[in-house]
Amino acid sequence: MSSRTRGPATDTPRTGRRPGGGSTRAEILRAARELFAERGYEGATMRAIAAEAGVDAALVVHFFGSKAGLLEAAVEWPFDPEVEMPKLLADGRRNVGRRLADLFVTTWDEEGTRNPILTLIRAAATEPQAAALLSEFLSRRLYTPLMDRLAVDRAELRAELAVSQLVGLGMARYVLRFEPLASAKREEIIDWIAPTLQRYLTGKLP
Amino acid sequence: MSSRTRGPATDTPRTGRRPGGGSTRAEILRAARELFAERGYEGATMRAIAAEAGVDAALVVHFFGSKAGLLEAAVEWPFDPEVEMPKLLADGRRNVGRRLADLFVTTWDEEGTRNPILTLIRAAATEPQAAALLSEFLSRRLYTPLMDRLAVDRAELRAELAVSQLVGLGMARYVLRFEPLASAKREEIIDWIAPTLQRYLTGKLP
Repeated sequence: MSSRTRGPATDTPRTGRRPGGGSTRAEILRAARELFAERGYEGATMRAIAAEAGVDAALVVHFFGSKAGLLEAAVEWPFDPEVEMPKLLADGRRNVGRRLADLFVTTWDEEGTRNPILTLIRAAATEPQAAALLSEFLSRRLYTPLMDRLAVDRAELRAELAVSQLVGLGMARYVLRFEPLASAKREEIIDWIAPTLQRYLTGKLP
Repeated sequence: MSSRTRGPATDTPRTGRRPGGGSTRAEILRAARELFAERGYEGATMRAIAAEAGVDAALVVHFFGSKAGLLEAAVEWPFDPEVEMPKLLADGRRNVGRRLADLFVTTWDEEGTRNPILTLIRAAATEPQAAALLSEFLSRRLYTPLMDRLAVDRAELRAELAVSQLVGLGMARYVLRFEPLASAKREEIIDWIAPTLQRYLTGKLP
């Protein structure tokens, strides 16, 4: 049922062990991304990921050590901070809240729960290793490059408050699918969320 | 290890099947609350809950039908809407954001991940049945009584936006434990979050 999203490698028979090497590793990562997104971190067993990739489970352990190692290798951050930061800050501090809301809502609306940040948020709710990975990714790829450029007091706390609203929106709109929030238009959500992010990132300290 | 939090019922030997009836049911619910909070919804198996309660797993199924049924019976909403709504609205619309932020942050600071709303949020990240239960609880015990009294346009969407910030704060401060957010003082968090909730609940439509 999931083969429709697979590349040409599906022509290879999907049983038995494949020769080691780059393409096998890539195939395991593709299977892991797919099953983590479909079933969540706990639901996607190593055995199921190996079967989806057409390899022995032992080979998955050989390449990635553990399920947490596989998660870390499989999650691809959905945007490049070097590309996005200049866009977020195109007007300096002004509109950074709106641009950040737009970046997340647009990416999530397009990718839904297949988005790797949502995969990580769902996994992090129950798995400390996934929580640590999410925190490290957010910090390295989002907060730190953004807050370095904004140069405000209490930068880390501000960034985490903004992330708390984004995580909550991700949960409520895309994972829990609360209605009418889940069906509201993208522009309406951005209009509501943007001033919150703007205040957290650049507003007066309370 | 968990017996320190148990009541006098622990004097009863904890092996074998107990006589059916009210106290056995109550003991299963106590065990379920404890293990759901400690291990999450997926981590707390029916078998482990039965063992903690000192009963056969079959008896848990007999009383509650399924794990989802047990979750629904075990989760106690941490406040009574009939008691809290008049307090939230003590100044009418004014300060409802601050009072709501205070209610959640104070309850969560005191109870941490043992708080049933956080248990439900964590479970809901991966379990559709828990997500439905969380949505139904929030609607019946929080949104509907609150928004009926506020009488604003787009009441449901406003309530869900407020909940999205609260869910995100719950995740970031108490589950993911992002720092410095997790260690920030309660009053500082309330000061940051209150204007967000106030705008979502009573602010001008964008």
